Amino acid sequence: MAVIQYLSRILFDFGAISTLGDEIAGLGLKLPLLITDRGIASAGILDRALDASKPCRPVVYDGTTENPTEQSLLECLDIWFERGCDGVIALGGGSPIDLAKAVALLTSHGGKLADFNVKTGGSARIGKVSPQIAVPTAAGTGAEVGRACVMSLLDGTKCVAVNLNMVADVVICDPELTLSLPPRLTAATGIDALSHGIETTMSPWINPPAGAIALDCVARAAKWLPVAVNDGSNRQARWEMMMAALEGGMCLQKALGGAHAMATPLGELHLHHGTLIGVLLPHILRFNRDHAVESIDLIRSAASIPEGIETHDWMHEFVAGIGLPVTLGKLGVDRSLLQGIAEKASKDHLSATNPRPATAEDYFGILQAAI
Amino acid sequence: MAVIQYLSRILFDFGAISTLGDEIAGLGLKLPLLITDRGIASAGILDRALDASKPCRPVVYDGTTENPTEQSLLECLDIWFERGCDGVIALGGGSPIDLAKAVALLTSHGGKLADFNVKTGGSARIGKVSPQIAVPTAAGTGAEVGRACVMSLLDGTKCVAVNLNMVADVVICDPELTLSLPPRLTAATGIDALSHGIETTMSPWINPPAGAIALDCVARAAKWLPVAVNDGSNRQARWEMMMAALEGGMCLQKALGGAHAMATPLGELHLHHGTLIGVLLPHILRFNRDHAVESIDLIRSAASIPEGIETHDWMHEFVAGIGLPVTLGKLGVDRSLLQGIAEKASKDHLSATNPRPATAEDYFGILQAAI
Repeated sequence: MAVIQYLSRILFDFGAISTLGDEIAGLGLKLPLLITDRGIASAGILDRALDASKPCRPVVYDGTTENPTEQSLLECLDIWFERGCDGVIALGGGSPIDLAKAVALLTSHGGKLADFNVKTGGSARIGKVSPQIAVPTAAGTGAEVGRACVMSLLDGTKCVAVNLNMVADVVICDPELTLSLPPRLTAATGIDALSHGIETTMSPWINPPAGAIALDCVARAAKWLPVAVNDGSNRQARWEMMMAALEGGMCLQKALGGAHAMATPLGELHLHHGTLIGVLLPHILRFNRDHAVESIDLIRSAASIPEGIETHDWMHEFVAGIGLPVTLGKLGVDRSLLQGIAEKASKDHLSATNPRPATAEDYFGILQAAI
Repeated sequence: MAVIQYLSRILFDFGAISTLGDEIAGLGLKLPLLITDRGIASAGILDRALDASKPCRPVVYDGTTENPTEQSLLECLDIWFERGCDGVIALGGGSPIDLAKAVALLTSHGGKLADFNVKTGGSARIGKVSPQIAVPTAAGTGAEVGRACVMSLLDGTKCVAVNLNMVADVVICDPELTLSLPPRLTAATGIDALSHGIETTMSPWINPPAGAIALDCVARAAKWLPVAVNDGSNRQARWEMMMAALEGGMCLQKALGGAHAMATPLGELHLHHGTLIGVLLPHILRFNRDHAVESIDLIRSAASIPEGIETHDWMHEFVAGIGLPVTLGKLGVDRSLLQGIAEKASKDHLSATNPRPATAEDYFGILQAAI
């Protein structure tokens, strides 16, 4: 049975950040907690957001780490209750957005994040959370329209909480905020957006609206990511990539596949998610080749891949062409880890929606080819 | 600024109606009011829905008229309060779905429907309404994912109430329920679905996710509507058309255009909406031809229109080919009414999103060509 669901109110345009004050007022917030990181603050983006928040003066937390931690969550909760906050604004990439979701969850529900772990069935208990506004500052994860938060707990384990009630009430996408993103980060985040379009297109789940959005994401990212990497000041390229990232996030309900199944355990090595995805995408396309013929044809057509070039070869060239590494070795992954990663990948829930069933042995083979 | 918003949880498959009992329970409903019409009841579809509702036993209202009226609304409210209902189930086409929205609105907000008229700004006051499940029995309007209800008030005027809070909580799309729809009604409802894809594609509003869904709707309806009309028992055609209708409803946020602007005043003559749309579509495509070149190219490609055939000529043949009338005269529209209809069309809010600005004079010319 197809289950199809879309949420969120999204304001998208150059200068959209200027609506922040109105949206804060629209949600009835008096003192939101703005969650960001020091990179965003030092790039001047935080100041622009604070300026746009007027007359409201949000409380700022800028201690978000690259992979958000329960420690940051506890710090945010302390600030929230001490200052009497009433909503969250996430400003940044996937990390501040995930952290903000956890804050919205615990300030409305109480308890600890582990109580809401999807693995123990806790996520099903999540009701309406505190008001949230998400403002992405990169074009990649699509987390701004996401329903999940992923966090490292104090005991070192990862916790995923996921429920539609955690989707942000308002999303403000302003491509202007991405103009200063350096080429390497533009590439590493943008390839993640493209991968969402590619993997959801290959997924066997039936969701034609998501499928249509996924192909539009593929077409947009394949055309504009190289432009955005080569010329970060190209406004159209920034607009198109932010739209591709948003579409990538919107189509995720059609489910991902093997590249993301491998990226989850590889991510535990503290490697950049998008960079990992760039390495893995050509290999999963090769692995799926004869098991997703129709959907790979759709991808080829959307990405305008010339006839006579294999899809995985095109993908390899694309990743190299935007300056990203194309082997796990380049990322410092040690061969001795591959067997363990392959086993974890085969058990990851995203592996179940790869169009070609993949065993630990299959993943081991893919990882060996990718190192 | 692009504003993009998607809602609703949609269960879509042959046999999906069997989930009705679980979904009633999932919303915590003890005694929903099931709103339908006598045609649905006599076709045996009501019995199937009641059977699927078990162990719940909804209260039934089957007095919905073709264009829902405030009289029906008052009858439903009487039943709701007398029996102590706690939610609505709409079973049918656009009329029961619209009526159910009005019931959900007034049982949660009190007052009269006119208090929430979009024309007087009343719709902005609409908050969360009573729980709603929508079960479409035709593949056409896409009202099942709609946010508006249109109703004739007791004083004879039309009232439109529209707010995202009126979107149904759960939508159950079961193509099985459409297998018995006769060819003429299959054609007249299906052409409405196709028109949603076509007009939203031509609309100048920026909403790429809706645009992608609209083109998928066009491709699907152009391919499968003739099949569903010629062989109503073709299960795939019924599935594809129900999906096209759903997609047509989902993309409406990108806005419609001139065909629907004319269909609104023509609808006041109590003519079937889809049949009217079928007559008007070729004419609006001709009118827009040089003002929506890029989007009409996308439509041509999605609908696989052969080169060398003008889009409006193809559309005319398509409408005739599924057995629908191609002139307003055939529907009994009198020439003397055209000037008044043209004036109303030019003032309709949907005219503002036609890609080519259209005056009353323009509409008069189009209507004269269409009669």
